[in-house]
Amino acid sequence: VVGLGTGSTASLFLAHLAERIQRKGLEIRGVPTSEATARLAESLRIPLVELAPSSAPDLVVDGADEADRQGRLIKGGGGALVREKMVAEAGRGMAVMVHWAKVCPELGAFPLPVAVLPFAWRMIAAAVSSMGAAVRLRSDRDGGPRLSDDGLMILDCAFGRIPEPEALEEEIERIPGVVACGLFTGLATRLLVGGPDGDVEEFPVPADAD
Amino acid sequence: VVGLGTGSTASLFLAHLAERIQRKGLEIRGVPTSEATARLAESLRIPLVELAPSSAPDLVVDGADEADRQGRLIKGGGGALVREKMVAEAGRGMAVMVHWAKVCPELGAFPLPVAVLPFAWRMIAAAVSSMGAAVRLRSDRDGGPRLSDDGLMILDCAFGRIPEPEALEEEIERIPGVVACGLFTGLATRLLVGGPDGDVEEFPVPADAD
Repeated sequence: VVGLGTGSTASLFLAHLAERIQRKGLEIRGVPTSEATARLAESLRIPLVELAPSSAPDLVVDGADEADRQGRLIKGGGGALVREKMVAEAGRGMAVMVHWAKVCPELGAFPLPVAVLPFAWRMIAAAVSSMGAAVRLRSDRDGGPRLSDDGLMILDCAFGRIPEPEALEEEIERIPGVVACGLFTGLATRLLVGGPDGDVEEFPVPADAD
Repeated sequence: VVGLGTGSTASLFLAHLAERIQRKGLEIRGVPTSEATARLAESLRIPLVELAPSSAPDLVVDGADEADRQGRLIKGGGGALVREKMVAEAGRGMAVMVHWAKVCPELGAFPLPVAVLPFAWRMIAAAVSSMGAAVRLRSDRDGGPRLSDDGLMILDCAFGRIPEPEALEEEIERIPGVVACGLFTGLATRLLVGGPDGDVEEFPVPADAD
């Protein structure tokens, strides 16, 4: 059982996985992290299964918007952070593939996506602002709020720098109405970094205390 | 600004509040905790306002499915627990009105409602089961899952008894995909108990450490 990430990098992985399934006869079932990934997987004839205890992924493969050298991530630029996080938390391991330019010494240059219940978005925006971020409600081309697959709004919260990702993740997710924030800590078990010449280097990720 | 609860008891309060607004010219704005309460308030001509930092309720008035003598509650039998909890957390005080038969020495006879993202419900049901509850997905008359105003599923989790409500609330709300559980601790500031003869007694609620 493989957790299937969302976004351009994950889409490349899906194409390779589909090719291997055909060529090597692999018995793989995929747990998609978005409606878009589910559609792509179906078009590639990757068998899908719903997230459940009997289908907890052996491995999740996903991209990220930002990663530090400890394998801590910012995700959610594509809006799929909630399902991506739930699948990653259910999985036994998570391989993250990123372009080298997304690896940074400290997280926070990329605005942190926070998925919230629409009913509470004004309260949450105020709470995250008071924590030092410039907060913007993500909008659609027509100017209305862009909703996630789960009907949630997304706040893009520019902190500039995030010196303590674990503490910030916990603080934000404790706010009533926050469903998930885009900080992924203690989840990535492998960090695969693509270099400028198409080479891939694996950065060692420290084992989590959990 | 008054937070307007949901359910039969809260509806009686709305009727009284509307009457006072008319008779005494009170300047009240209500923050409704459900679409049903918003419709009722509109029909009673109670002015409404969206939940926001500028409209944090001075007082929230709501009912409960179960209350103990410390003012800890189980709510969510009507499915509005998420908005009820967000409004209560935003408010400066919460008056809870219950029938005497709902006051018990220990919570848990009433199955605890837990509001969850549909995508994760199977994982969450398994996690709460492993904590000792009999878990049932709340369904509609047609047999499909009954969704809340926020598009969430509700798991009714029968624990039988809940000796440590604060600890259980925190443990359940830490599960990925759980939006809120129906345990309300540290929120009620007044507990008004209706007796069998129509009399009302106020039970003293210990001040919260927060």
